[in-house]
Amino acid sequence: MIEVIAFDADDTLWHNETLYSENQEKFQRLLLGYRDAQWIAKKLYETEIANLKHFGYGVKGFTLSMIETAIELTEGRIQGVEIQEILNFAKEMLAAPVEVLDGAREAVEALAQRYPLTLITKGDLFDQETKIARSRLGHLFSHIEIWSEKDQESYRALFAKHKLDPARFLMVGNSLKSDVLPVLACGGAAVYIPYKTTWAHERESEPQLWEQGYYRLEHIGQLPELVKGLK
Amino acid sequence: MIEVIAFDADDTLWHNETLYSENQEKFQRLLLGYRDAQWIAKKLYETEIANLKHFGYGVKGFTLSMIETAIELTEGRIQGVEIQEILNFAKEMLAAPVEVLDGAREAVEALAQRYPLTLITKGDLFDQETKIARSRLGHLFSHIEIWSEKDQESYRALFAKHKLDPARFLMVGNSLKSDVLPVLACGGAAVYIPYKTTWAHERESEPQLWEQGYYRLEHIGQLPELVKGLK
Repeated sequence: MIEVIAFDADDTLWHNETLYSENQEKFQRLLLGYRDAQWIAKKLYETEIANLKHFGYGVKGFTLSMIETAIELTEGRIQGVEIQEILNFAKEMLAAPVEVLDGAREAVEALAQRYPLTLITKGDLFDQETKIARSRLGHLFSHIEIWSEKDQESYRALFAKHKLDPARFLMVGNSLKSDVLPVLACGGAAVYIPYKTTWAHERESEPQLWEQGYYRLEHIGQLPELVKGLK
Repeated sequence: MIEVIAFDADDTLWHNETLYSENQEKFQRLLLGYRDAQWIAKKLYETEIANLKHFGYGVKGFTLSMIETAIELTEGRIQGVEIQEILNFAKEMLAAPVEVLDGAREAVEALAQRYPLTLITKGDLFDQETKIARSRLGHLFSHIEIWSEKDQESYRALFAKHKLDPARFLMVGNSLKSDVLPVLACGGAAVYIPYKTTWAHERESEPQLWEQGYYRLEHIGQLPELVKGLK
């Protein structure tokens, strides 16, 4: 018996990874005079991962990592005007329209009539808050949680705070690492709805489909039907 | 009758503004070859304020604003190696030891025995969480709130969420703009404890000392005594 349904936001309710990919491509084009695209992508990814412990997730950290990568791979020859372009990418990303995924609004609206819904996102507080506002989905959620990391510890703290039995909790998201595996490990249920691309850092191997509490859907539009069956 | 006491963190429980001032000075020294220190400070402040709507508060936004200022005031002539220095400032700031203010630990420990304490900070989620951890004060608080903005609306949402009567709420902080004025406007009580410096953006004129619910202390060590008197 499910009592609370929680949703991830980025790439579960609205497009996000595409924005990062597009800006990474712009970044690669900007630096093509110095290095080839593949090398630039590899270096950027390494810098991002090394900087997670300093900056956490989100556009601002990504931008600082782009700038650092640009300096490193040009051996300091990068020009101020080129770095200004990277800053412009950041401002565009932070103001970009939030495109809700096909069928997401309808699925959330349908479930909000029968369950208290929680939104659980990871990343930068300011950025996530403005995305929730731009998505016009925020009012459908009775709780909104913005975490710096989505791991077992964070989910356990949520269960304790709301005196919630994990067995009655269903998490819906596109990241095995952040939305599915930690929830299953706590004894909760999770629906994995893959997005068309996954950031390398979030890749994990998929649980077996017969594993207790694990579900997989191709499309969020199928979610209300699945939840009906869980009753 | 006070039932809940909430504390601001930066410059109320631990030093923070000094870290920004020190790094602003390093930034000025880095660019002295291009412009005089006062001009650099003025330009940086303008950029920071203009960027608040993109980046919110915190070290990462401050760093992006330093980089943007450096590019602008050198008309793009800034070198990659100099920008790398600015990135290094950011990493040092994010890893800097958190220096708890004299008497803050003792005051919080004393009050934690008699009241549920809440910590309410503004800024970058990841940065604030790691500062709370580094301060070793987190366990003294029953709730921790990290907001992107501390205004009347955010305080009202807190009162509603915890079904709290504002008249039984006391906020302690160093910012008139974020900790004192919005709480008084909601009908709560507030103790203003000025820090030695205040970021220009946070400056506001002080309420009259006879105003309902308004208190001012010179030192956080005086707080337990003041609270005793409020009973």
